[in-house]
Amino acid sequence: MLKVVIIGSGNVAQHLIKAFRNSAHAELMQVYARNPGKLSHIVPQELIVQKIEALAKAHIYIISVTDDAIEEVSSQLPFEGRLVVHTSGSMPLAQMDSKNRRGVFYPLQTFSKNKEVDFKNIPFCLESEKEEDYLTLEKLAKSISPLTYNISSQQRQALHVAAVFVNNFTNHLYSIGDDICHSNGIPFDILKPLILETADKIQSLSPTDAQTGPARRNDITTIQRHQDFIENPVQKEIYTLLTKSIQRRNG
Amino acid sequence: MLKVVIIGSGNVAQHLIKAFRNSAHAELMQVYARNPGKLSHIVPQELIVQKIEALAKAHIYIISVTDDAIEEVSSQLPFEGRLVVHTSGSMPLAQMDSKNRRGVFYPLQTFSKNKEVDFKNIPFCLESEKEEDYLTLEKLAKSISPLTYNISSQQRQALHVAAVFVNNFTNHLYSIGDDICHSNGIPFDILKPLILETADKIQSLSPTDAQTGPARRNDITTIQRHQDFIENPVQKEIYTLLTKSIQRRNG
Repeated sequence: MLKVVIIGSGNVAQHLIKAFRNSAHAELMQVYARNPGKLSHIVPQELIVQKIEALAKAHIYIISVTDDAIEEVSSQLPFEGRLVVHTSGSMPLAQMDSKNRRGVFYPLQTFSKNKEVDFKNIPFCLESEKEEDYLTLEKLAKSISPLTYNISSQQRQALHVAAVFVNNFTNHLYSIGDDICHSNGIPFDILKPLILETADKIQSLSPTDAQTGPARRNDITTIQRHQDFIENPVQKEIYTLLTKSIQRRNG
Repeated sequence: MLKVVIIGSGNVAQHLIKAFRNSAHAELMQVYARNPGKLSHIVPQELIVQKIEALAKAHIYIISVTDDAIEEVSSQLPFEGRLVVHTSGSMPLAQMDSKNRRGVFYPLQTFSKNKEVDFKNIPFCLESEKEEDYLTLEKLAKSISPLTYNISSQQRQALHVAAVFVNNFTNHLYSIGDDICHSNGIPFDILKPLILETADKIQSLSPTDAQTGPARRNDITTIQRHQDFIENPVQKEIYTLLTKSIQRRNG
């Protein structure tokens, strides 16, 4: 049984805490939190520590704090030579203090406070400084998800950028769709099945094969009519740029 | 039982043919197709007509052809005063010949040749010139989907633009994610759960509430690092523009 300590109380930390508490193959030893009130509903009081000196001995320490705080927290740890990982998509492994054996344990998913996630569908991007630690990280990840990938810090950086495109920017396009509906007295609900199907389609087709629309078929008349229709200058700029990008990619 | 004739043999026509063939409340009388070979696998030969003069009497004629051909096909119809609709998201009702009672029967979904769709999840945008025809259109739509909306030609134009944002442009962002993965030796599969969750999230949260990421939290350091990372100039331009748009919207 792998013994785990989680350092942090944010969104990702909370989801990991719940996942490890439900896992038969990992034991959550402790959670370090400066603000234990945030955790009272998901973890027994006796597992929470507020002093970093009080950290118990474990196989793996997971630092799940904001990117800016990772370096400082890693250097405050009162021990050396143990396996310490962070959960950030954008920070390199080397961001942490080298006094411990370093690794990365990055769940590639969008976590919301008010929405449960199923860890079985979450890919874990794993990286370790020492080869022998990789197996431990893999075993820990497999205790909550079958999807594990060996991803270097350089690849993780790329993946984080890709995730911004397919998650943050996609959601922003949903917002624009919502705005357009709202200004025209149309319920946004009408777009929801289309949004789901768009995401579902590329589970089996490549995005290139799944591409449709006026830009893809170079339908200049429709593109012009859409551009005339859009009044908001930022929306118009986005429409024009993405249309050009599709035309160039498929031209 | 509503008697329906479909005019056309493209993607949308084929999906509608299958849906009406499976419906207990509509009867597919005929399909008019210049190229009947495309339909041989989904409709019995005796239902296909190749001469427009041979069209049978029906309650509703559905013109499901390319946008450019709608006007011509509608004027070639060898009858007057009947209910004739098109299935286009971007063409106004008035595009059709006024010798018949005109309407629109637009299924708002992305249709692919090789992927079945469940009509129960497809919203139908309905419009009719004459009030009494609206009930007929609604009854026909309800025979294959519970989701029907009364949408004017002007609203449908807005909806079509919104659909380009949430479907075509979103899929293009998936392509960019795919490209970034490919150039960095990462399997695109790793992004698929994130893509699904992003679409699933806004089924219950508003896109504004669901927005996350460096632009949303104004994390200038990460934004700068991403911009430095992206080499492709079009991708960099898209990153910069969408980041600005998120910052402005949530600022």
